[in-house]
Amino acid sequence: MRKIHVIGIGAGDPDQLTLQAVRAMRGTDVFFVLDKGEVKADLTRLRRDLLDAHVPEGTYRVVEARDPERDRTAGGAAYSPAVEDWRVARAGIYERLIAGELGEDETGAFLVWGDPALYDSTLGILEEVLGRGTVEFSYEVVPGISSVSTLAARHRTGLNRVARPVQITTGRRLAEEGFPDGVDDVVVMLDARQAFLRYLDEDVDIYWGAYLGTPDEILASGPIAEAAPRIERLRAEARERKGWIMDTYLLRRNPSGR
Amino acid sequence: MRKIHVIGIGAGDPDQLTLQAVRAMRGTDVFFVLDKGEVKADLTRLRRDLLDAHVPEGTYRVVEARDPERDRTAGGAAYSPAVEDWRVARAGIYERLIAGELGEDETGAFLVWGDPALYDSTLGILEEVLGRGTVEFSYEVVPGISSVSTLAARHRTGLNRVARPVQITTGRRLAEEGFPDGVDDVVVMLDARQAFLRYLDEDVDIYWGAYLGTPDEILASGPIAEAAPRIERLRAEARERKGWIMDTYLLRRNPSGR
Repeated sequence: MRKIHVIGIGAGDPDQLTLQAVRAMRGTDVFFVLDKGEVKADLTRLRRDLLDAHVPEGTYRVVEARDPERDRTAGGAAYSPAVEDWRVARAGIYERLIAGELGEDETGAFLVWGDPALYDSTLGILEEVLGRGTVEFSYEVVPGISSVSTLAARHRTGLNRVARPVQITTGRRLAEEGFPDGVDDVVVMLDARQAFLRYLDEDVDIYWGAYLGTPDEILASGPIAEAAPRIERLRAEARERKGWIMDTYLLRRNPSGR
Repeated sequence: MRKIHVIGIGAGDPDQLTLQAVRAMRGTDVFFVLDKGEVKADLTRLRRDLLDAHVPEGTYRVVEARDPERDRTAGGAAYSPAVEDWRVARAGIYERLIAGELGEDETGAFLVWGDPALYDSTLGILEEVLGRGTVEFSYEVVPGISSVSTLAARHRTGLNRVARPVQITTGRRLAEEGFPDGVDDVVVMLDARQAFLRYLDEDVDIYWGAYLGTPDEILASGPIAEAAPRIERLRAEARERKGWIMDTYLLRRNPSGR
């Protein structure tokens, strides 16, 4: 039967690969690389560099496909329809890749930035493909170092405080719902709108990072009133320079400041 | 100046080490191993196995110390005083280890299970030692694969659902405060009291794992009414057999079931 590895490859630093990930990559016949378009070409190249560094040439094939664009204009809290269409389109692509490009006894792999468990759609799509019943395969997941872990490590801070919770959420939800109740440590991912700006008047520290783990990494932290304008500027400059940005941040509210 | 590596070594599987962790271990002169007492001797042995497997013999020293016992009888939501005493006692030990066992130009390391950013006290203690001003050192953090990532990978599930948050919390808080508002995916760590049992009547799925990443790993999942009695039994048996247990679980509430 066909086999699939879903391999977390860390936040961008090739040294963040685990030994288990390297082993899984060396046992892979076909790597599926989904290109998200021009602006992410850097990421696609980084992935090819990982293969060059860790897997002997000639032992694998690379199959590239174009990831469908998601309609990001469809906004609002219930933005599921656009996401749903996009999932169905991706599932169709994955289905064709697995059925058409992977031999019956071969092993394929998807290399996922960060950890496949956090804000990544690969596992859901594979389940959807299996549910369609047109191609059989087994799959396993190799966990990876997430951008969240990398952010904390680079700032040398924990994500939670002693015996306290931490919430990981999206920029959209933070913007719409505010700081979650009962939680003073919030990690924000996928924030295109700089939702942190609404906390300038609160007793909040921010730990921010962009392109974490890559040579382009940028870090900034401090009390939010002081750090936020700096981060806005760094973000705008980096985005201008590279054409895209991927950033993550931790907001830490001082409990006595509530 | 003295240098310290705080190295995340993954949840228990030696293959979860990152290349960066192996490199940091190979650049270490002194490993500080804090033994939490008899019941955790398995973990101390696993750590020594990691060293044997990845670092050439004769290139490092191992210094062992006894971690002070934490007074777990002091309960209640504000259990900070006991934790605080324990932190101060640990800081004293770390201070003596770094000042007394590490040469001026040497590099020491603490090997931390999982990821140093999640429910681990090492970073806080190092900051406390630095604050005392009696010994100078620089330190850096190598992120690791957490038991949370491992749990999700072994169950082949994401931690969050599409565009939704995930909260990581403790068994104590779940028991005291219930399911957090606005969050349907909750990861629970450090739960000695099986707080999941209060959700038997709700539309919740549980993904549970113990000794994740080790040869003793146990997994169980399913609708909570069906899975919880099974998990209770597995937990009791394993605890009896090994003398200690470390487990983690994800509770996933079905939004339509609220």
